[in-house]
Parts: sequence; C-alpha cells; structure tokens
Amino acid sequence: MTAVRATLLANGTIRQGGAELIDAWIRDGDDLLWIDIQQPEENVLEPLLEERFGFHELAAEDTLSPNTLPKYDAFPGYDFFIFRAVDVNVTEHGSQTYKLAAFLSRNFLITVHRDTMQAVDDVCNRLPSDARLLGNGPDFLLYNIVDQMVDAHFPLLDRIEESVDDLQESIFKDARPSHLDELLHLKRDINVLRRQSVPQRELLNQISRGDAQFIQRQHLIYFRDLYDHMFRISETIDVERDMMSGTMEAYLSVVANRTNDIMKVLTILSTIMLPLTVIVGVYGMNFQHMPELHWRYGYLFALGLMATTTVTLLLWFRRRGWIGHLSRRR
Amino acid sequence: MTAVRATLLANGTIRQGGAELIDAWIRDGDDLLWIDIQQPEENVLEPLLEERFGFHELAAEDTLSPNTLPKYDAFPGYDFFIFRAVDVNVTEHGSQTYKLAAFLSRNFLITVHRDTMQAVDDVCNRLPSDARLLGNGPDFLLYNIVDQMVDAHFPLLDRIEESVDDLQESIFKDARPSHLDELLHLKRDINVLRRQSVPQRELLNQISRGDAQFIQRQHLIYFRDLYDHMFRISETIDVERDMMSGTMEAYLSVVANRTNDIMKVLTILSTIMLPLTVIVGVYGMNFQHMPELHWRYGYLFALGLMATTTVTLLLWFRRRGWIGHLSRRR
Amino acid sequence: MTAVRATLLANGTIRQGGAELIDAWIRDGDDLLWIDIQQPEENVLEPLLEERFGFHELAAEDTLSPNTLPKYDAFPGYDFFIFRAVDVNVTEHGSQTYKLAAFLSRNFLITVHRDTMQAVDDVCNRLPSDARLLGNGPDFLLYNIVDQMVDAHFPLLDRIEESVDDLQESIFKDARPSHLDELLHLKRDINVLRRQSVPQRELLNQISRGDAQFIQRQHLIYFRDLYDHMFRISETIDVERDMMSGTMEAYLSVVANRTNDIMKVLTILSTIMLPLTVIVGVYGMNFQHMPELHWRYGYLFALGLMATTTVTLLLWFRRRGWIGHLSRRR
Amino acid sequence: MTAVRATLLANGTIRQGGAELIDAWIRDGDDLLWIDIQQPEENVLEPLLEERFGFHELAAEDTLSPNTLPKYDAFPGYDFFIFRAVDVNVTEHGSQTYKLAAFLSRNFLITVHRDTMQAVDDVCNRLPSDARLLGNGPDFLLYNIVDQMVDAHFPLLDRIEESVDDLQESIFKDARPSHLDELLHLKRDINVLRRQSVPQRELLNQISRGDAQFIQRQHLIYFRDLYDHMFRISETIDVERDMMSGTMEAYLSVVANRTNDIMKVLTILSTIMLPLTVIVGVYGMNFQHMPELHWRYGYLFALGLMATTTVTLLLWFRRRGWIGHLSRRR
Amino acid sequence: MTAVRATLLANGTIRQGGAELIDAWIRDGDDLLWIDIQQPEENVLEPLLEERFGFHELAAEDTLSPNTLPKYDAFPGYDFFIFRAVDVNVTEHGSQTYKLAAFLSRNFLITVHRDTMQAVDDVCNRLPSDARLLGNGPDFLLYNIVDQMVDAHFPLLDRIEESVDDLQESIFKDARPSHLDELLHLKRDINVLRRQSVPQRELLNQISRGDAQFIQRQHLIYFRDLYDHMFRISETIDVERDMMSGTMEAYLSVVANRTNDIMKVLTILSTIMLPLTVIVGVYGMNFQHMPELHWRYGYLFALGLMATTTVTLLLWFRRRGWIGHLSRRR
Repeated sequence: MTAVRATLLANGTIRQGGAELIDAWIRDGDDLLWIDIQQPEENVLEPLLEERFGFHELAAEDTLSPNTLPKYDAFPGYDFFIFRAVDVNVTEHGSQTYKLAAFLSRNFLITVHRDTMQAVDDVCNRLPSDARLLGNGPDFLLYNIVDQMVDAHFPLLDRIEESVDDLQESIFKDARPSHLDELLHLKRDINVLRRQSVPQRELLNQISRGDAQFIQRQHLIYFRDLYDHMFRISETIDVERDMMSGTMEAYLSVVANRTNDIMKVLTILSTIMLPLTVIVGVYGMNFQHMPELHWRYGYLFALGLMATTTVTLLLWFRRRGWIGHLSRRR
Repeated sequence: MTAVRATLLANGTIRQGGAELIDAWIRDGDDLLWIDIQQPEENVLEPLLEERFGFHELAAEDTLSPNTLPKYDAFPGYDFFIFRAVDVNVTEHGSQTYKLAAFLSRNFLITVHRDTMQAVDDVCNRLPSDARLLGNGPDFLLYNIVDQMVDAHFPLLDRIEESVDDLQESIFKDARPSHLDELLHLKRDINVLRRQSVPQRELLNQISRGDAQFIQRQHLIYFRDLYDHMFRISETIDVERDMMSGTMEAYLSVVANRTNDIMKVLTILSTIMLPLTVIVGVYGMNFQHMPELHWRYGYLFALGLMATTTVTLLLWFRRRGWIGHLSRRR
Repeated sequence: MTAVRATLLANGTIRQGGAELIDAWIRDGDDLLWIDIQQPEENVLEPLLEERFGFHELAAEDTLSPNTLPKYDAFPGYDFFIFRAVDVNVTEHGSQTYKLAAFLSRNFLITVHRDTMQAVDDVCNRLPSDARLLGNGPDFLLYNIVDQMVDAHFPLLDRIEESVDDLQESIFKDARPSHLDELLHLKRDINVLRRQSVPQRELLNQISRGDAQFIQRQHLIYFRDLYDHMFRISETIDVERDMMSGTMEAYLSVVANRTNDIMKVLTILSTIMLPLTVIVGVYGMNFQHMPELHWRYGYLFALGLMATTTVTLLLWFRRRGWIGHLSRRR
Repeated sequence: MTAVRATLLANGTIRQGGAELIDAWIRDGDDLLWIDIQQPEENVLEPLLEERFGFHELAAEDTLSPNTLPKYDAFPGYDFFIFRAVDVNVTEHGSQTYKLAAFLSRNFLITVHRDTMQAVDDVCNRLPSDARLLGNGPDFLLYNIVDQMVDAHFPLLDRIEESVDDLQESIFKDARPSHLDELLHLKRDINVLRRQSVPQRELLNQISRGDAQFIQRQHLIYFRDLYDHMFRISETIDVERDMMSGTMEAYLSVVANRTNDIMKVLTILSTIMLPLTVIVGVYGMNFQHMPELHWRYGYLFALGLMATTTVTLLLWFRRRGWIGHLSRRR
Repeated sequence: MTAVRATLLANGTIRQGGAELIDAWIRDGDDLLWIDIQQPEENVLEPLLEERFGFHELAAEDTLSPNTLPKYDAFPGYDFFIFRAVDVNVTEHGSQTYKLAAFLSRNFLITVHRDTMQAVDDVCNRLPSDARLLGNGPDFLLYNIVDQMVDAHFPLLDRIEESVDDLQESIFKDARPSHLDELLHLKRDINVLRRQSVPQRELLNQISRGDAQFIQRQHLIYFRDLYDHMFRISETIDVERDMMSGTMEAYLSVVANRTNDIMKVLTILSTIMLPLTVIVGVYGMNFQHMPELHWRYGYLFALGLMATTTVTLLLWFRRRGWIGHLSRRR
C-alpha cells in the first residue's frame, strides 16, 4: 500500500506525519514541505500529483514506470528529476537497482520510490537532530538523499572488483565453465549499472552547471561533488568491463595451456610405450628361425633394449623441455 | 492496392472516410485533416503528394524508398519526417522493420506506410472516443502514433535479451554450432535495430529541442519523453551487443573445456592401457629362457604386476586432480 | 590519352563537342559549360586548369593524385570538390574505387576522372533529352552525377552482405582456411570503403549545410538527401564490419567444435580397443600355468569378456552423451 | 601524526618552520606562505582548513578522501585542486598512486598529502637555493611540484612497456599461465593509471586555458606544457593497453601452435608404431598354416617389411612438411 | 657536434653559410633568415635560442627533449612548432621517428633536429634553384619542409600494408610463431606512428584554420592540404590496425584448422590400426581349443578379416568427409 510520510518546517519547528500535513502546508503557505511516497499506486499517486500539485502527466508517468533512466525536466513552477541507486547484492546475481523520482520547488520536495530506500530513511531519521538538512531549503535536502544514493555505488563496485579478482585467481587455479557463467553474470550486472550510471553522471553534470531552476547557486558545488563521484564510478565501471574481457581471454588461454599439458602427458607416454609394444611384439613372433630367441640371455637382451629405448626417449623429451613442466600440477 | 483513410475534424465533429474527404478539407479550409496511406503505389502516391499537396519530389521519393533511415526535413509550409518501428518476430530470424513517412503542417497530417501498422490502427480506432487526440492538433496526433511505434521496441528487446540468456544457458549445457548460428542471427538483428535506432534517437532529440516547424512548443515535452525512451532503447541495444560478444567468447571457452575433458579421458585410458599391453607383450615373447614363464604363480605374478601398475597410475592421476573432474557430465 | 568532352548551353541550345567548345564559351561569356576530362595527363591537364582557368596549383595536384579522399576547398571564384565512387566487382577481391574531381562555378562545371565512370556517361547521355539537367545550373548537374556515384554503393554493399552471409553458411557447413582468406579480403574491401565513405559523408554534410559557394540554396536539399544516403551507407558498413568480426569468431568456434568431435571418435575408439588389446595380450602370454588356456570354452570365454567390455564402455559413453552427437556429419 | 611544514617569504627572506609560521603570516599579511601537510588527520586538518582558512567543507572532505580523482574547484578567494602522482613499483604489482590536494590563492599555497612525496620534498629542498621558486608566486611553486608529479609517470610507463615487451618475448619462448597472470596485473595497473590520467590531462587542459583564478597569465604556458606531457602519457597508456590485448591474443596462438606441434609428434609416432604393431602381431598368430613362419629368412622378411613401412611413412610425413618443423624446440 | 647551417635572403640574393650569417642578419635587419641546427647540444643551443633570440625556456626545453609530440605554441613575436616525421625502415622493426622543432616569425625560420633529415636537406639543396621557396616568406619555406615530412609517411604505410598482406599470405601457407612475433612488432610500429600522427593531424588542422600568428593567410590552403594528407595517413593507420587484429585472429583459426587436420590423420590411423591389433591379438592367443587356428585357410581368413575391417572403416571415413580433405597439404 502507498505509504506517505510528510515533514513540515514551519517557523523553525519540524513536524513529521502523514498526508494530513499537506493540507496544513497548502493552508499556511510559505513553509518547507517534504513528502516521501513509497510503493506508489497509480490510483493514489496520480490524483495527488496531477490534481493536487498540478504536475504534468508525463512526469507522473515517469514516476510510475519502473525503468526510466536518470533525467531532468524543467516544468513551470517545479523541477522533475529521476535518480537511480543500487543495492549491493551483486554476488547473488542480479544487483537490484532503485529509482527515485523527485519534484522540487522553492518550498517543497516530493520524493517517490517503490522500494524501501536506505538513503531516504537515513535522511528522514537525521532530520530532527540535524537542523542544516531542512534549514538550507529543499534542494539541499535532495542533495543529501542523492549523496547517499551515489555513494552506495562504491561498496558495490568494490565487491564487483573483488569478484573479478577472485575469479581470475580461481581460473588460474582451475578453469571451469562455472567461472565463465559467473563472469557473464557479472558482465550483465556491470552493463546494467553502466546503462544507468552514464545518464546519471550527465544529469549531475547538467545540474552542477546550474541548469535546474530550483537548485540554489550556493548549492551547485555540492552537486558538482556528486558529479565527480559519478564520474569516478563510471570510470571504475569501464575499468571493470575491461578487466572482465581480459579475464574471459585469460580463461581460454588457461584451458588451452591445460590441454597442452595433457597432450604432453599423452604424447610422452605413447612415445615410450608404443615402441616397447613393437619390441615385445617382435619377440613374440613365431618364426622358426629367430636367433635371439635361442640366445642364453635373449630375454635380458630384450629387456635391455626396452630400457635403452625408454631412457633415450626420456632424454629426448627432457631436451625438448617437455618433462620439466610436468612437475607442475595440471 | 493503395488504401487511403482520411479523418476530418470540422467544427468539433469527426468524419472518417476515404480520399473524398480531401476535397472537402480543401474546400472548407481550416479544419484538421489526417490522411493515412497504406501500401502506396508510385503512380497513385506521386500525383497525390506532389501535385495535390505540392510536396517536394525528394520527400515523395523518400516516402516510397523502403530503406530510408529516420530523418527530418523542413520544407516551406510543412515538415517531413521518417520514423521507423519494429515487429517482434525476432525468434523467427529477421525481425521486420517498418517505415512511417509523415507530412505535418498546422492543419494536416499525412502518414504513409507500406504494411499494416498496429500503432496507426490503434490511434485510428481511439479517435472517436478520445477527443484529445484530434483536439490538440496534428502534431499531438503524430506524437501518439510515434509513441506506440517507439514503445514497440521494448517487448522486442526483452525477447532478444531472453534469447541471449537462453543461448548462454544452452551453451553451458551443450555448446553446438547451431547456437553460434543463432547468435550470429541475433547479432544481425540487433545491428539492424541499432542502425535505425540511433538516427531515430537523434531525430527525436532534434524535434524535442524545437527544431521542427509545426510541433507546438507545449508538445515538445512529449517528444522529449520519446527521446528518453529511444535513448533507453539504444543503451539496451548496446548492452545486448556486448552480451552477445561475451557469449561468443564463452562458447569457444566451453568447447575448449570440453575438448580438455575428452583429452583427459583419452590420456588416462592410454596411460593405463599402454603399459599393460607392454607387460602382457613381454610374457608373450617366445624366448627359450624366461624364468617367469615357468614359475608356479607366474601368471598370477603378471596379473598382480598389471593391477599394481593400474592402481599406481590411478593414484597419480588423482593426485594431479584429473579424476575428480570426470564425474561431471561432459 | 586525355579525352575531353565539352557540353555548352547557349540560349537554350545544347552543343556537345571537344575542347574547341571551351573557346566558344570563353568568347561568348554567360552560357553554361560542362567539361568532362577523362584519363588526364599531367602535361595536358595542368596548362588547361592552371593557365586557362587559373585554378590553384594544389587543386590541380589533388586532381591528378590518385588517392585523395573526398574534400571541399573554396577558392575565389570557384569551388573544388573531390568525390569518390565504387565499382561492384567485390567478389573478385579488390573492389575498385574511382575519384571524381570537380570544379564548380556559377556558369561552369569541370569534372576530371581517370577511368570511365558510368555516372558521368549516364548523365552525359541524358543531357539532350532531359532539359532539367542543364537548365538548373551546373550545381544541379553535379548533383546528378554525384547522386549516381553515391547510389552505386548500395548494390556493392548488398553483395558484401550476401558474401558475408554465404561465408557464414559455408563455415557452418565446412570451415576451411580459404573462408578465412576470403573474409580478410572482404575486411580489407570494407575498410577501404569505409575510409572513403566517412569523409564523403562529412563532405556532403558540409555541402548540405550551405558551405559551398556555388551550390544554390534551393539545391541544398538535394545534397542533404545525398548525405542521408551516405549516412546509411556508412552505417551499413559498420554493421558489416561487426558481422565480419562475429564470423571470424564463429569460424574459430566451429573448428574447435569439429576438433572436439574428432577427439570424441578417437577417444571412444581407443577406450574400447585398448582394453581389448590387453585382454587378447593376456591370453597370448606363454606362462606354463594359465588355467583358462586349457578350459573347454576358454576361447569363447575370452571373446565373451571382450564383448562384455565393449558393451559396458559403449553404455558408459552413451550415458555421458558422447555417442548421440556422432550421428551428425563432422 | 600530521606533519606540518611551513615556508614563509617575507621581504625576500625565506623562513622554514612549523605551524607557528601561519600565525606570523596572518599577522604580517602580504607575504607568501606555503604550508605542506603530510599524513593529515581529520581532527587536526578540518579545524585548520575550515576554521583558520575558511575553506569549504567539500574541499576539506575531498582533501581527506583517498580516492578523489584530479579536479579543480573555484571558490571565492582561493582555488582548490586535486592532482595525482604515481610510484614506480609496478613490477611488484600494485603501482601505488598518490594524491595531492592544493589550495591556492594570491599569496598562499597549501598542499596536503598522506604519504611522503618525492616531488614535494625535492621542491622543498630546492627552496633556499632557487630564488625563482618562491619569487614567482605560489602558482609557480605549485607548477614546480606538479611538474615533478607528472614527469614521474614516464619512468613508470617505460617500465610497463619494458614489462610488456619482456612478457611477449617470454611467451614466444615458453607460454605459461603465470605470464597471463602477470599480464592481467599489468592490465589492472595500466587501467588504474588511465583512470586518473585522463581527468588529470583534462584538468591541466582546463588550467592552461586560464580557467583557474589564481594562476597568473604568464604562467599558463607552463601548465600548457604539463598538459602536453599528460597528453603524451595518456597516449602511451593507450598504446600499452593495445599491446597488452595483442599479447593476450598472441599467447593463445603460441599455445595453440605448441599443441599443434605436440600433436604432430604424437601422430607421427602413432602412425609409424601402430602398423608395426600390427605386423609383429600378424607373425605372432598361432595358425597352423602360415607359410612365412617356415621360410628360411622369414624373420628377416618381417624386419624388412617393418623397415620399409617405417621409411615409407617417414617420407610421406616429410612430403607433408611435418617433419621439418620438429627440429625446432617445442 | 652541433651543426649550424644558415641561409640569408638579402635584396633578392641568397647567401648560405654558418652561424656567422646570424650576426649579418641581426645587423641588417629586414631580410629573411633560415637557420637549420642539427644534432643540438644543450650548452650550444640554449644560449643561442634563449639569449640571442629570447625564446621561452619551455620552447627551448621542448626542442631538446626527444619525445615531444607535435604541438603549436604562440609566443609574443614568434610561433613555435614541433613536427614529427618517420623513416621507412619498418621491416627492420623499429621504424625510427624524427622530430623537427621550428621557430617561425615574420622574417626568420629556425629549424632544429637531432638526426639528418632528408626533407630539410632537399629543401636546402633546392634553395638556389627555386626562387619561390624563399620568395614567399619563411612560412612557405616551413610548408615545403613539412610537406616532405608528411609525404614520407606514405611509402612507410605502403610497406606496412604490404607486410601485413605478406604475413597473411604466409600464415595461410604455414602459420608459425615467428609470424606472430612480426605482427606484434608491426603493431607496435603502427601504434607509435598513430600516437604521433593524430596530434600532428590536429596541429595541421589548427594551423590551417589560421591559428598560427606568422602563417600568412594565402598560405593556409597549403597547410589545409597537409592536413588532408595527415587525415588520410591516420585513416590508413586505422585500417592497418584493424587488418592486424584480423590477421591475429586468422592466425589462431589457421592453427586450429591445422590441429584439426592432424587430429583427423591420427584418428583415422588409430581407428584402422587398433581393431587390426585386436584381431591379430585374438589369433595370437594360446587357447587349446581355437578352431580357426586349425583351419586350412585360417591365416587367409584372418588376413581377409583385417582387409574387410580396413576397407569398411575407410568407407565410413569417406562418408563423413574426412578423407577428401587429407589430400590438401597440411
């Protein structure tokens, strides 16, 4: 069910409550209002946004559509933003991404999101104790929420980097198809991340250049800072993508190496055993006239011939450098 | 045969009919006219467009040529657009793409397309019941058609994504050349899609910046929204292209892994059997003086030697970690 | 030998002839002159261009140099263009590319090319019958030539696409090094094409924006149309380049698959035959005390043992799924 | 512990000391002050920067955060920069990168860094002997520090290039998985380097265009020079990345070649030995009626048959060109 | 040792000599002076450049540093350029690149380079006979030198293209690791070339737009022409890079094909020989009761069985299409 949390700043006093505070704010005018709406339902949200606040239908649509990428639209009397955040459950395959829609004006901020968002809850909880959060206007409040959303990328990227490094290590130890599978999943994760990070970076760049109507000039530096963070995030994403490609290639090479080693074992073995088989076959022939068969030490002679052949071949392999490598595992 | 559907808005009344409404519109002047032409034939279309409406010969040519990419041309008195849509039959290989040519002015919209287009039919059917469609001018009508055309990409992309994921899964189970074949077909599909999506995105960007003459300012935001959708589409296309490359590389690695496993089976087997062959060959030799042959338990001794050799080699393979892997299928 | 064809439009009358018309044109002033020079020789061309018409030495140089890429230079009193066309002999490896140099002014057009060019000949032949060609000025004449040159790319690209598709099909049937060879040749062809198409696209973009001095405003739309075609051409080139890369990767995978299948045959065979060899070897040993040798049905027992071993191993391979695949050819 | 080194230029006299010089500078006004802070602790740094100098909290934060990328922020009354340098320990895997934060005004420079930095120490030591360092203002001082930081990239890149070349050589001699491992580490190193070099290049470009408030016009050329160096660095990074990709591909090919050679040895050997085994097996059969067994020179005949077979096969292999290659090692 | 060649144009008379002409020029003022300095030594060059001509220390530094990339710096009273040329010894691995530093003003040109440069020598030798070289001012002189430097790329690129084509051909004949080695060397060559060509192209673009102070307007077209050449050069470089990647991939595929063919030989041989070994083994068994051994034509029966087996297997291989391929060499 749609959950509405409202926070009102009136004459320096903070009141937190539900939808009823909206009426108080409309009545009393000038104070600051922050409405946070979770799990929005179309039949509740559209009347609120379109009728009560007169927001444009396209903004309301984007608020409800789950896949909208980060964007900024200027409407008369308010700014509309879409931001995106991430969740850190990347190892479970399918890092979840979150969407935050925000309507910003001189004296209100409305945030809408489907799932519980840590960033919103944290800011909400800090409101009573941190006077600066509301005191600097709704744009500074928005900055604080987006700041947490942006910074949530870092632990996720650290985990991805760690996963890639672990995978590389595993592959060098024992390359298995399951590693490839994991790599492709990580690749999809990072691609999904990249798809939303690049427009978010551009969005923050746009805001920090002063394009948004209701972000105060003295707060632009804060959004510039967020842009710098997003820039670092998207650079890191590119590094990881490159490392993943390298890992994929390394996988193939490791397997090729292993096949190579197996082939060596087989070849060395066959090269030694097949001539021995021929030798013993020769003395197993049933010709009437085979002098060796009647020698006193014919048998020893045959065994000696076999030993000589084996040693000669082993030396030949050592000279070619094949045998030294076999001491390494796989 | 060329099919012409005309819709006329005169004094708030909607009339739907054939080519005869064009004369009524020319006679009565100011009303809004939408002409939709399907399966255009050169000998019918050119007189209509060039002579009746005085459109430029190049626009008429582009309207007929099947491969024109999305574009916008400003002509005196009217705007000319090419949009492209897609059909969802991607799994059948050869996702069909559609072309919509549109002539837009203050009081008319002419749309031309070869095949039946869902988007046009839907808007046409909604006309009687939805007053906003015609009430907001021909540019808003065009927006409604293009909106459906753009959104038709999403189910197609979802199917491609699904196909790629399925292919990956199949490849990890059992990599076969037919998977590669399918992958290359998907690759061509996505490349064809990309070739038309990028210019369409740029076209919508251009329109949303207000470059078209007959798109009203208050409707720019709608085309901006379409641009956002096309942007998301082209980002998704890039993600899928990247995933396809990854899948191709994975295929090769999976096959290499399989060859590796087969080689192991062969090598283990040969390593065990070839020495046994030598042993039995030794005792099949016909030397007169071979003490073992006369031993009471010579035969048992030989079998014991063979068993010992086998066990020793198996232990050696287990120590190298080759045998554990063989329990996995292929 | 340098061949000069001149066409003169004087008071609505067309005269076609050789170099002597140049004098007539210089004498009589205002008429339109088109000179087409084929197989230019330095000692003939330079006096004509530099002395007679006073063209810049660099333009004359570019006219003679065979490798100049598409470009536009504005000189006082005339425009200088280089365009490039293609020939369709791509399957013969080495699609030839052509160069057309053009000097354009208010009342003359001079085209220079080394080889016979279909586009020039066609326009030349249409001159007597199509009044619009000369009637719209020399820039429209140039448009008509370039239009044919640009459109000549499409059949070539269709053939390349077809070749790539055929190659893919052949590779899936029977991957041979000659396919790779052909692929690399196609790759060089498409790269050569791309190298001249991108600057030609940019040149046409520049012209269509109105940068050239002697292209009349009302004809810009025609060059815009050529730009759209070149844009489609360069997009198609990129798609084909991507498909070629994919084909190269597929080739490797197909060969890997085949090796895999061959290995399976070898492994299955060895796995069955080597144990049989050991069994028959055992009963070929010459020990005095081997009870089986004296059994009544010893021979049958041995054959039975061999059959049992074979069947057991075949069942094991079927369980691993190796044998089902062998029914497919290669 | 936070270490503070202060340098004061008062009436042409240089004084070096600790934090106490800050008070002198504040009291006496116009002189130039350089404060270098090493190993900053939050509880020491923030009061100093935010309270004493009134720097913005975001600048103070960026100063402390270890991962900030190169950037420039203009604040009223001072410029804030982040530069990054590198350490040359690349062969140990994990080339360390350093961060230098700098606050610049008309009459002071404050540099903050966590680790000992060679560039800062060198400039510090040259101060007494080189009058130009302080005489040209704090921006020239900053230039001298950054100059050394930038130039520290070159020996590192030389070492990376050398490592890549060595790796290639090693791979051609004996491709081992450890080479791949090293290559992936180098790849991560160069990617990390690239991630910080590109923004640093852009930062220096921005400064050299005159965007910073407190860089004097006559010193812009020096920063332009740094930009040129950073440009060369980032180009070299791209070359090395490309060489690494090539090396990865070469690795795979070298291993494939080696497997190929091993297979040849195995195939040649088996092709010769298996027919010999059959021949000796034939004359080991126990049929009562085998004429050869009773021939006088039956044994010699059999040996001759084996020799003939061997020579024939060897000649066949030589004709196919397989044997010439085997003389090469591995 | 530093070699100084000076050329003085005074009242239409050309004087060539050493450093002493500099004094004459300084004394007599208005004439044109070209100083060419080869193998510059720091202790000779810096006094000359910095003290005599008052050039900026950074320009002097760039003149001496061997790795500076192409660049342009405007200084009060003179322009400073770095250009780069190439030598054609690419097949020896390590195509040498040259650097030319140039100081240009209204009435002087100073060129500095370490090695003998063909372009400088040629222009120097043409001076007495070609009045235009000096008559058009020092910028035209510079153009003539750079023109030769730029055109020196073409034979080099032709050789690289030829090398790549030769390599491809060799690889299809007989893929050896030495081909890979050569390919990687070519790759480094082309990358080094690319690293200096792209900034040189941009430098010439900048000059041709009229950014340099002392290039006369009427000569811009000449530098535009150089830009066109550099553009073609960098496009060709990109084509070759792409062809090299393709060649690398082809190499791998060719080797894979070859392994495949070798495997086929081995498999066919083993498939035929192993069953024969079993058959002869069977009749070498020592059972007392083996009826075949006593047959009149038992031996012939066994030989017949072997022949039948062989023929059957050969037919099976032909049906699978394995044997047709073996007639091709390797």
